[in-house]
Amino acid sequence: MTKPLTFAVPKGRILDEALPLMARAGLVPEAAFHDKASRALSFACEGSDARLIRVRAFDVATFVAHGAAQAGIVGSDVVEEFAYPDLYAPVDLQIGHCRLSVAEPVGTGAEPLDGASHLRVASKYPNLTRRHFERQGIQAEVVKLNGAMELAPGLGLAGRIVDLVSSGRTLKDNGLAETGVILQVSARLIVNRAAYKTDPRLGALVEAFRAAMAPREAA
Amino acid sequence: MTKPLTFAVPKGRILDEALPLMARAGLVPEAAFHDKASRALSFACEGSDARLIRVRAFDVATFVAHGAAQAGIVGSDVVEEFAYPDLYAPVDLQIGHCRLSVAEPVGTGAEPLDGASHLRVASKYPNLTRRHFERQGIQAEVVKLNGAMELAPGLGLAGRIVDLVSSGRTLKDNGLAETGVILQVSARLIVNRAAYKTDPRLGALVEAFRAAMAPREAA
Repeated sequence: MTKPLTFAVPKGRILDEALPLMARAGLVPEAAFHDKASRALSFACEGSDARLIRVRAFDVATFVAHGAAQAGIVGSDVVEEFAYPDLYAPVDLQIGHCRLSVAEPVGTGAEPLDGASHLRVASKYPNLTRRHFERQGIQAEVVKLNGAMELAPGLGLAGRIVDLVSSGRTLKDNGLAETGVILQVSARLIVNRAAYKTDPRLGALVEAFRAAMAPREAA
Repeated sequence: MTKPLTFAVPKGRILDEALPLMARAGLVPEAAFHDKASRALSFACEGSDARLIRVRAFDVATFVAHGAAQAGIVGSDVVEEFAYPDLYAPVDLQIGHCRLSVAEPVGTGAEPLDGASHLRVASKYPNLTRRHFERQGIQAEVVKLNGAMELAPGLGLAGRIVDLVSSGRTLKDNGLAETGVILQVSARLIVNRAAYKTDPRLGALVEAFRAAMAPREAA
């Protein structure tokens, strides 16, 4: 148990909101973490033997599910997309709010949904997309894209997209309208289930994040 | 045939090297293409009715293979990883040189390869990785990561990684050594095979890129 805990955080937007919460839970990254020119991938914490790794959101879930990191922060979109049995998400951090939605071209219309038994959808979330349409009895063929989903309908790659939506401005700029919400998204504290059962530091970490959330809940 | 051609280019490093070649082949993006603050995904070209889209490297191949873009530029790593039957890569652009390599921790050693029948590898390239080890009679379990592969061995996620290597500095910084080259990589002009057969503008585009390469070959 002398091995330091590894805590995985996602690059990008969620991180700015996560850092104050992490600090209240006792995770304060060393100064080098904020050096944008640095090529380092792993960082020490002040006053703690935990290590931080900063990776892409989907990879946060992969590292934690395999126990290579014992805990981390990631959006509920990623938790639900992978549905790793070894991943436990005990705390809703109430940050990084957005939604995973279906969108299609305004007016003109993708293929009609009524009576359709098959359609093509561009998304970074093949599993959530397939499950969403299956619930409506529709078999969705998902074209996996890593970004720029909004281009797909106009270029004929797919009639619809499933993507994260925040303000809706990107959809509007690309002539798309939201037609359904699949998932309300917020960031979660995630832990590796096996490590949580065997390493008492993880129970303490979960409690520290719950306590870090308290002032916000009381407000 | 009045629909404009869509040409897909990858974000990042290759693009700076590709722009002069594209210009010699008649594809000069409008000024907005160089505006880093712009959220636009699609751009006009000067003196041509072609449109440019700028997407992630893996998505360049997906757009072209599905005929949503008719042509584009992408690394041979991506061409080989997907091995889309509808994607034709007629011109080696001799830019974006690097290699796809296997790496493992210096000295200490991952699991030994001799006599192994199974091992775990972290990579963004599951197909090329599996094929590489299959040729040696080894079944590789690939943990798909989108970045920061170099973290995987140290954290016990995988004994080896398969990643793009250029100078080798990132590997060295992370205590890893290259132990084998899977593929020498360079950027390719790619075209959708069906569009190439039916739309004469694509034959002309391929010839324009061949001609754009000529001064370089003569040098």
